[in-house]
Amino acid sequence: MTDCIFCKIIKGEIGCFKIYEDSDVFAFLDIENDVPGHTLVVPKKHVSDMDTCDEKTFNKVMLASKKISSHFLNLGYEGVNVATNCKEASGQAVPHFHVHIFPRMHNDGAKLEMRPASKKQTLESVAKKLRMQD
Amino acid sequence: MTDCIFCKIIKGEIGCFKIYEDSDVFAFLDIENDVPGHTLVVPKKHVSDMDTCDEKTFNKVMLASKKISSHFLNLGYEGVNVATNCKEASGQAVPHFHVHIFPRMHNDGAKLEMRPASKKQTLESVAKKLRMQD
Repeated sequence: MTDCIFCKIIKGEIGCFKIYEDSDVFAFLDIENDVPGHTLVVPKKHVSDMDTCDEKTFNKVMLASKKISSHFLNLGYEGVNVATNCKEASGQAVPHFHVHIFPRMHNDGAKLEMRPASKKQTLESVAKKLRMQD
Repeated sequence: MTDCIFCKIIKGEIGCFKIYEDSDVFAFLDIENDVPGHTLVVPKKHVSDMDTCDEKTFNKVMLASKKISSHFLNLGYEGVNVATNCKEASGQAVPHFHVHIFPRMHNDGAKLEMRPASKKQTLESVAKKLRMQD
């Protein structure tokens, strides 16, 4: 997509620190650099988010994320956090589907935390609403 | 695995609020209930984490996570966060591979945040270390 920053990175119109590339997937360092090695894994074709991504492309991005994570662990990292935010309400900042990988070490000072929602609901009432039919 | 809390939940030995089930995948509400609808998606067979999970099982868990996320969005949620922590150093608390899904609304007060690492490294030096061969 013409005005998508990730599409421009994939095309080489904007520079990046590339970590991984195959025919369908591209991965590069997040410039936020909050955790050393924070990597973004994206499909080469423009897909706005996980929800609208076709299953084939989704599988390719997720398998590449798994492969990159294992590579980080093989290099000596002791853990990884893998996350994707879907839609603006979740905090998705760039509307091109992307998976974050954070290489982690014990006592690195980092932590992936969910700040709790301001309103509570009982598990019973939520389950009744959300449960999918068998 | 005999002493795995998620295996016990899957077998029905420990109660839960089930959200989804198919032949290979089970999903239920996280009892932490930090965000209403916080769901855990797990393979029925015991696999300790994402890194050691075979690709077939991994794909099934991720596709079920995508399906459940789309179900939440269809119900009116405005976004989802999807995350997995791999190994204790990342914060993985139960050693049975699981994906967290957090249904989200604008202004729900929740936020998935990465607390930055205490030591910084330049993007250049990290990229040199982490880059995979083409």
